[in-house]
Amino acid sequence: MAKISESTVSRLSHYYRVLEEVAAEGGKVISSQLLAEREGITSAQVRKDLSYFGSFGRRGLGYSVEHLRAQIRAILGLDRRWRVAVIGAGHIGSALLAYRGFASQGFDIVAVFDVDPARVGHPDGALSVRHVSQLSAEDAIDIGVIATPVRAAQEVADALVAAGVRGLLNFAPRKLRVPDDVWVRTVDMTTEFESLSFALSQPHGPRRRRPAG
Amino acid sequence: MAKISESTVSRLSHYYRVLEEVAAEGGKVISSQLLAEREGITSAQVRKDLSYFGSFGRRGLGYSVEHLRAQIRAILGLDRRWRVAVIGAGHIGSALLAYRGFASQGFDIVAVFDVDPARVGHPDGALSVRHVSQLSAEDAIDIGVIATPVRAAQEVADALVAAGVRGLLNFAPRKLRVPDDVWVRTVDMTTEFESLSFALSQPHGPRRRRPAG
Repeated sequence: MAKISESTVSRLSHYYRVLEEVAAEGGKVISSQLLAEREGITSAQVRKDLSYFGSFGRRGLGYSVEHLRAQIRAILGLDRRWRVAVIGAGHIGSALLAYRGFASQGFDIVAVFDVDPARVGHPDGALSVRHVSQLSAEDAIDIGVIATPVRAAQEVADALVAAGVRGLLNFAPRKLRVPDDVWVRTVDMTTEFESLSFALSQPHGPRRRRPAG
Repeated sequence: MAKISESTVSRLSHYYRVLEEVAAEGGKVISSQLLAEREGITSAQVRKDLSYFGSFGRRGLGYSVEHLRAQIRAILGLDRRWRVAVIGAGHIGSALLAYRGFASQGFDIVAVFDVDPARVGHPDGALSVRHVSQLSAEDAIDIGVIATPVRAAQEVADALVAAGVRGLLNFAPRKLRVPDDVWVRTVDMTTEFESLSFALSQPHGPRRRRPAG
């Protein structure tokens, strides 16, 4: 398989959502045009993305929804369960724990950690909040979600890496230093808000230099 | 002022966090080296970013924390208040309402909307949930946060644009179609999770092609 870019991976994730919707509506086949329309891209881009892993729709017939969904599912690593730990049992952490959508995609939140004595030992949803110092390789965490105040983010990242965690989802508006074999994805709401206030502050109104979204 | 790239704007937002921390610790000056270290970039990049708006530290003396903070604050449009509406009073929407950090940066959540009869008319934090059909230009919303199920996202975006909203923060894993003078930023947790599961699924382990974060 050819090397797949980050933006292709993101689009695969979006195609997967569309395929789930179409499957729920009882659809059996989907055209690259329809996949493209829902994403606001060209059908040529869709066909190129899907050709990376050898899936070619038949001209005039389109793609089998079930087959394509299973292929993308496997590519994205969604055909197994992932053990997720949330560090920081504040608003964001608790919202993630309460949201059931991740579990339906294979991401099981199996542990939640904090340092606040008011939270540690207390339940948050179905889990009891543990002290961060208890995090260890025995937890066998695949993905650590950093939902701490920004000050604590690097220290928590270091603790997760020391516990063998190789995927981090960072909600703190700070770049993290991690070894080369650890992946970090960032969800930085503060910076997104500030990008909007910056854009809306421009005197003559913003002109987009690339497509929105 | 020269045109500022999206990545520069994101870094300004991060520098601003660092400056707030340093100010809270009583620091008066900061070197480009320290700003760079906290962000994991080079001090040359910091100096280049800051030179866009004419802020030059003095060699050996660094930048005045207060002056630089005020400058970045103005650049990012944080020297005024922004009226924010949250659409979708589910887990994410409620977490945003409960989080006080945005208000301290100038983002006031002034309205929350939903379509679910079980939510409309009921309080969510200090606000009463209104039906989406009530959203209008009179709400004078600057930024709309789309925290609905993915199916509803485009329709809600259209309603926000019709009500004169020019900045959208989209939590739904779907690209939105908007007019050219409307800005969209995306916070797509599902896709971020799936980028990690993709990376962690690679047979020989991932090799990063660009810095993490």
